[in-house]
Amino acid sequence: MTPAAAAPSAIRRVRPPGHEGLADLLIENGRIAALLPAGTAPPELPTLADGEGRLMLLPALVESHIHFDKTLWGAPWRPNSSGPTRNHRIANEQAVLKDFPLSLAERAGPLIEHCVARGSLHFRSHVDVQPAFGIARIEEMLALRQRYAHLVDMQLVAFPQAGLITAPGTADLMEHALALGLEVVGGIDPSGIDHNPVRHLEAVFDLAVRFGRGIDIHLHDGGELGRFEIERIADMTEAHGLAGRVVISHAYALGAFAPAELYPLADRLARAGISIMSCAPSHFMAPPLAMLRSRGVNVCSGSDNVRDTWSPMGNGDMLDRARLIAMRFGWSKDEQLADAFDIVTHGGAKALGLGERYGIAPGCDADLLLLPAESIAHAVVSCPLERTVIRRGRVVARDGVLIADAALA
Amino acid sequence: MTPAAAAPSAIRRVRPPGHEGLADLLIENGRIAALLPAGTAPPELPTLADGEGRLMLLPALVESHIHFDKTLWGAPWRPNSSGPTRNHRIANEQAVLKDFPLSLAERAGPLIEHCVARGSLHFRSHVDVQPAFGIARIEEMLALRQRYAHLVDMQLVAFPQAGLITAPGTADLMEHALALGLEVVGGIDPSGIDHNPVRHLEAVFDLAVRFGRGIDIHLHDGGELGRFEIERIADMTEAHGLAGRVVISHAYALGAFAPAELYPLADRLARAGISIMSCAPSHFMAPPLAMLRSRGVNVCSGSDNVRDTWSPMGNGDMLDRARLIAMRFGWSKDEQLADAFDIVTHGGAKALGLGERYGIAPGCDADLLLLPAESIAHAVVSCPLERTVIRRGRVVARDGVLIADAALA
Repeated sequence: MTPAAAAPSAIRRVRPPGHEGLADLLIENGRIAALLPAGTAPPELPTLADGEGRLMLLPALVESHIHFDKTLWGAPWRPNSSGPTRNHRIANEQAVLKDFPLSLAERAGPLIEHCVARGSLHFRSHVDVQPAFGIARIEEMLALRQRYAHLVDMQLVAFPQAGLITAPGTADLMEHALALGLEVVGGIDPSGIDHNPVRHLEAVFDLAVRFGRGIDIHLHDGGELGRFEIERIADMTEAHGLAGRVVISHAYALGAFAPAELYPLADRLARAGISIMSCAPSHFMAPPLAMLRSRGVNVCSGSDNVRDTWSPMGNGDMLDRARLIAMRFGWSKDEQLADAFDIVTHGGAKALGLGERYGIAPGCDADLLLLPAESIAHAVVSCPLERTVIRRGRVVARDGVLIADAALA
Repeated sequence: MTPAAAAPSAIRRVRPPGHEGLADLLIENGRIAALLPAGTAPPELPTLADGEGRLMLLPALVESHIHFDKTLWGAPWRPNSSGPTRNHRIANEQAVLKDFPLSLAERAGPLIEHCVARGSLHFRSHVDVQPAFGIARIEEMLALRQRYAHLVDMQLVAFPQAGLITAPGTADLMEHALALGLEVVGGIDPSGIDHNPVRHLEAVFDLAVRFGRGIDIHLHDGGELGRFEIERIADMTEAHGLAGRVVISHAYALGAFAPAELYPLADRLARAGISIMSCAPSHFMAPPLAMLRSRGVNVCSGSDNVRDTWSPMGNGDMLDRARLIAMRFGWSKDEQLADAFDIVTHGGAKALGLGERYGIAPGCDADLLLLPAESIAHAVVSCPLERTVIRRGRVVARDGVLIADAALA
């Protein structure tokens, strides 16, 4: 559902990155019609926003990995009650959410609105597909997406959190979820959770091929085990012609090897058209994002768990995530800080297949973020909350707060 | 310079940590006079702040390691232009600051005000003592401290950035700086910068003993080299009876060893009364702060470089720093998040020797932070900017903005 086209309008006196001086933007039918020198947009057009030379014009942020269905965002503070292993966390989540007083929409709805107010308009959310939650969770998430379709673009991943092989009934539920409209086939730790890497990956790719979908696999399996799995994912991606449609999320294993050892694997990922999603965690080994990018691998990022039973952290702010990425790798040069920003914008757009309509150029959707900064580098380190968010040519949030009408269709 | 005592007043309906239910606070002569059940403070007293049951009452944050003299905070964005090594950065800073258009006060003054607005009222700032900058930098920093004495408590460290032995003239300048009123003797990488660990440390401790001062040593030297130096610092601290007055800043070496190897060294630090200052960097090995605390070592933290020629990062927000600490170590339990908060409050107060007047109890200075959160854990993960900062019983900042009068004496 695309919102009805807004009347033509102009954004005045803003600084697009890589653009000499100030610019005006013409917006027509929810898209960027033209980038003009500042002061040359027709004065009779309504002014959508005026940067007064002080605001940068940026593309909306891309949240490439979040779990909206898990969040407790709308609920009172709840101390983390999970045991230490992934299986503890899976069982703990099942126990906590079983009788939780707030519905998925009451928890995730406010978080979606918060994310929008921070500047993200494109999302990929994983949705648990496990018999413990049944089809209800999937239907609730689809309904929530529908409710916010005017405000955000959201891809949903059918995510077999508890295992695709080991949790009985999951394979059938995955098919059901994909049939209902979840776009992407998820996977998780083929060895660590499902204890059978080849069978797990074959099942994931089989679903992707049968339903004509992309793939996004959670891969926490580390070291040589993770590397083995990444190589098999590359094999299968090439065998099935899925270049550009496969994301490996987390991929901690890529942080375990010296650069020289990783080059061949990075080159393989680049050739296979596989994107790497990393939150750049500071308490784990993170994939070396600069090296991966330098070898041609597309990299995107996400908030992952946001205040849920898995983690109290996460804030849904992808500009803060760019700052965390830069800190994680000690990036301090303007070009490096711009790389961090590229990961949370164009890198995400590529991983999610947003295509030519994403960006700041004539023809692109007018999905934009305006904020006070002197450069992209400055935006990343300062993370100002004074943000104006524009969706298809309408202002939907100002100063970190959603405009009341925007929450409604 | 302490501000003139404000009239008695009350803070109403706030939640102090570890306190059952809501409380009122009586403030007299800039100190906490009493903690009372909510609703029982005399209604005729002026209301300094009303938490309406929604705000936590916390002690002001403690910034234990910052370089105010280096910051470019007040200046237009300047891309990082430094080479890769510490010696490149020293030379680059000298070159950039030589003819910089803004004075130290014009750069650091706005940063001090920003830090106060984020809730820090107690600071330890290192001040470069190197012949390239001469006595002027020290005098400018002393003048700046004087200007803000009504607003913040600030200790200054005489910091031989370019080396105490290798940079000719530094030792004399150190004596001069201490005689002028800098409270703490600084040191830096006895091997990495000064290439003579024993002679460097003897010089530092000699100054501390002669001037009757504490010590704060930047120790980036890693691995076995750093461990050797930490052991010598412990030797000298014990030999000179300086327990409680020595801080080792950064101490990356402590991140290089397995816990069992570190226990004896941690126990030694605890016995010697040496505090560890860590920014919990995510791109270096960080000292294992939970383990150190569990062995009785006091831990504090700081912003370190804030938008200066060394690093574009840093934001002077010690609540954000607590969040970064928790993320760095994967702390997710409420007790762990409270540990992170303790490091940026009571840990700092102990390292800086603030004594009994720091805290939330009758008799303590009314240096306080109010913010909307349900618990300390919630405050750490959410880092709200809606903060009310109280200095000696006066409100000096609201919602992240210094109250105009507060900047003036």
